[in-house]
Amino acid sequence: MRPRRALISVSDKRGVVEFAKALSDMGVEIVSTGGTAKLLRESGIPVKEISELTGFPEIMEGRVKTLHPKVHGGILADRSKNEHISAMEEFQIEPIDMVVVNLYPFKETVKRGADLDEIIENIDIGGPTMVRAAAKNFKHVAIVTDPADYDKVVKELKEKGEISLKTRFYLARKAFNLTAHYDALISEFLYSIDETGKKVECRELPNPLTITFEKVQDLRYGENPHQRGAFYREVFVDEPCVSLSEKVHGEKELSFNNIYDLDGAFNLVLEFDPKSDGVACAIIKHANPCGVALGSTPQEAYEKALKVDPLSAFGGIIAFNSKVTKEAAELIIQRFFECIIAPEYQEEALEVLKTKKNLRVLTTKGLKGLERRGETSPFDYRRVVGGLLVQDRDLITVLPEKLKVVTDREPTQKEWEDLLFAFKVVKWVKSNSVVYAKDKVAVGIGVGQTSRVDSARCAIEKAQMVGIDLSGAVMASEAFFPFRDSVDEAAKVGITAIIQPGGSIRDKEVIEAANEHNMAMVFTGVRHFRH
Amino acid sequence: MRPRRALISVSDKRGVVEFAKALSDMGVEIVSTGGTAKLLRESGIPVKEISELTGFPEIMEGRVKTLHPKVHGGILADRSKNEHISAMEEFQIEPIDMVVVNLYPFKETVKRGADLDEIIENIDIGGPTMVRAAAKNFKHVAIVTDPADYDKVVKELKEKGEISLKTRFYLARKAFNLTAHYDALISEFLYSIDETGKKVECRELPNPLTITFEKVQDLRYGENPHQRGAFYREVFVDEPCVSLSEKVHGEKELSFNNIYDLDGAFNLVLEFDPKSDGVACAIIKHANPCGVALGSTPQEAYEKALKVDPLSAFGGIIAFNSKVTKEAAELIIQRFFECIIAPEYQEEALEVLKTKKNLRVLTTKGLKGLERRGETSPFDYRRVVGGLLVQDRDLITVLPEKLKVVTDREPTQKEWEDLLFAFKVVKWVKSNSVVYAKDKVAVGIGVGQTSRVDSARCAIEKAQMVGIDLSGAVMASEAFFPFRDSVDEAAKVGITAIIQPGGSIRDKEVIEAANEHNMAMVFTGVRHFRH
Repeated sequence: MRPRRALISVSDKRGVVEFAKALSDMGVEIVSTGGTAKLLRESGIPVKEISELTGFPEIMEGRVKTLHPKVHGGILADRSKNEHISAMEEFQIEPIDMVVVNLYPFKETVKRGADLDEIIENIDIGGPTMVRAAAKNFKHVAIVTDPADYDKVVKELKEKGEISLKTRFYLARKAFNLTAHYDALISEFLYSIDETGKKVECRELPNPLTITFEKVQDLRYGENPHQRGAFYREVFVDEPCVSLSEKVHGEKELSFNNIYDLDGAFNLVLEFDPKSDGVACAIIKHANPCGVALGSTPQEAYEKALKVDPLSAFGGIIAFNSKVTKEAAELIIQRFFECIIAPEYQEEALEVLKTKKNLRVLTTKGLKGLERRGETSPFDYRRVVGGLLVQDRDLITVLPEKLKVVTDREPTQKEWEDLLFAFKVVKWVKSNSVVYAKDKVAVGIGVGQTSRVDSARCAIEKAQMVGIDLSGAVMASEAFFPFRDSVDEAAKVGITAIIQPGGSIRDKEVIEAANEHNMAMVFTGVRHFRH
Repeated sequence: MRPRRALISVSDKRGVVEFAKALSDMGVEIVSTGGTAKLLRESGIPVKEISELTGFPEIMEGRVKTLHPKVHGGILADRSKNEHISAMEEFQIEPIDMVVVNLYPFKETVKRGADLDEIIENIDIGGPTMVRAAAKNFKHVAIVTDPADYDKVVKELKEKGEISLKTRFYLARKAFNLTAHYDALISEFLYSIDETGKKVECRELPNPLTITFEKVQDLRYGENPHQRGAFYREVFVDEPCVSLSEKVHGEKELSFNNIYDLDGAFNLVLEFDPKSDGVACAIIKHANPCGVALGSTPQEAYEKALKVDPLSAFGGIIAFNSKVTKEAAELIIQRFFECIIAPEYQEEALEVLKTKKNLRVLTTKGLKGLERRGETSPFDYRRVVGGLLVQDRDLITVLPEKLKVVTDREPTQKEWEDLLFAFKVVKWVKSNSVVYAKDKVAVGIGVGQTSRVDSARCAIEKAQMVGIDLSGAVMASEAFFPFRDSVDEAAKVGITAIIQPGGSIRDKEVIEAANEHNMAMVFTGVRHFRH
């Protein structure tokens, strides 16, 4: 297909003058409107106004300008059908063989915090209609929505004298990908407000569900080398997260598994407020923590976190909830970690970290903004073949009003501190999970076993292998104990207090076990399965 | 807002006559076109043709009928602005206060296997334009896209004499949710074919990425009771999966965790072809298998799978790759399982299973269609806060051309069988994972530890606790061994052969360890991290 007439109407004007000039020089008639027409004309390109084509002016402040049968007949006519050709003749519709359109900046308008009226005005109606019409008729029309494609189109026209069906198809699916994205953004925005434009917190789980993302980067591969992978970000996201982080050192690209582990590390340290809880350090391996501790300095938190399972820490991801010091950095570089993420680094700390070539150093100011968690990104997604499980994110950990001591003995002050620490950690361990903690250090982490007592035992064994004495430690379980067995196992190694959601039909038996061992037990009323 | 004029043009005509009649009876002028106009007129409702409004006929077989400034000026005019009002007067544009439109059945056309021309013809251009225009102008216009909302609108009009802003906003965001879904489907379809309409296997990872799903059901809650949850399915899905399964018994609804576990159970038994591999039974708990076995009958496979970890099996999900017999059913009901899924059940088996009130019995004919895996659903998604990791699904397990014996000793025939079995199982265990197998039974499953040797040890301990003798068993690891320690641990309990991807910088040391223990070791060249 060699275009004779192109309709050009773009919001993003990058490269459009050069493109229109190239088309015009090849004898393509340019039809345009508004700001685009003005720009092209000023650049010396002959331009026909759309209103000349339609015999109808632009009205209602531009709300209606291209929604006209002479425009859409020209775009939509199936040139292979006599009926369409004669309709064009009868109604003096001139064929439009190329449409160059990009859309009103809806996203940018929302992101810069415009008011509802202005946002609504930036919902493009005419643009998507032309894009969709031209894309539907890709057998006869080329639809160019991306300035990045201008060169490709000009090159093909120059070299082959036409735009091939293959290229028109490529452009058409890109066009529908754009309109889908555009309307998904509008829909997502509308689901986040009420009719007055006020932000509402609790979005519905709509039907159908359409979610949209922008690509951050292609990845070398997915979870495994034989799977392609890419990392996408939510468009309106504004809360602390990996996609908003910045890499300040490290040549190697982040991998699929790095990003997943960074997310886990991140979420875990965000459970702790640096001011009230202290400095938190988490070391993540294969999506599970292998070391977590609070300390008064990053160095102390790191040393305590590492000590518990230095073998697993090898090649892991490390996260802090506060500024990394030189002292901590000097310890960290003595071992192999893939990435480190923290809200800030002392300048000297950064210098030290930069001496490690393969360590990726990431920062996100967002990590300081604990209170912004959950502001965006309301949903969690879990893939199943052929479908998607959607749920609210698990944003709560401890609700003080639900905490209930169920044993004869109350926890001591020290036990309370360790219990609350342990319960925040166990939330981020894959189920079934059990965490033992002592002096705000996770001294045993039981991960992902198919029975709870196995998780309870695995963690004990791991602690014992590195010579950690569990006596005086506390235990947290992310879900209730179905039997008393885990409590008995814990008692054997000297655990003195337990925190768990409660809610089993055998709670009574479990509480009795705790009382027998003179343990304190706290029910949280909130479960944290995480699979 | 009390509508004076409604434009009605629907593809799905359910309920439209009653709705239009109610509107008409309330004095609303009905404007319509084509089949809708004909239907309403035949039902005795006064209808004005859109062409009367526009003075322009429907042309090009309906491709152009509503794309006209008199229609869109009527929909888009901001009634609060003088300029818009005077434009309406000047160009004799009559206000349209309500738009009742649903779209050409694009999805249905694709699903019934129509050819590309017909599918393209079912990309609606005029419909979405009216829907989007009316939704944009929700401050003055009501957009009704769902027949399920007809009653709500009529009721409100009757009771309050108007359609409130709140309702119009509700309708508008539903409208954009619909157009986003519609274009996401078109985009998804176009990414699955080439320009000639031929199916192509390897889709790009597009930018932006927009994915869309239909709700199967709301769930009681998500992974935990404080999280809302819902289950969605892909629209074009056609391969065996939970969303295409059918519940043949059980009153209780499936939970979020049930569905996630069913998916895991499902994928695991699909690794085995009932004809060449035998009957496979898998028991899943917390997204990980706690029992997997092959047998010559379902009963045998079940008994072998259960024996390894009966404690974990309690409350689990059970899956078979072939028809469930009465003998198997009689054993199964002696224990508590949440769900069972299989391609078929003997009639007597179903009778037996139905005696258990809380057991959900699911069937999917799709399970027979092993060869259809991966035909749809090309992507796997992994949620991170603020973003999404996207990758190809992990659809391969063993590539015979990549299998390589790296030790002095070749595996025996029996070892080969167990090795291939174990490697198929270990793929579906959360990383780090190690599986010991003997006589095609997974006799030890090491799940999700942060270090590989811990997984290797955990599985040994679990096997020993139920008195399983591991001597003569084989070992599979889903990723390479970073050190020789796991090999040495395995040797201690009599493991004779190992299968793993290989690729560690210490492969040499690991192979040497195997040779020292007279083990056979096979490299698969393919890794299966699964987090």
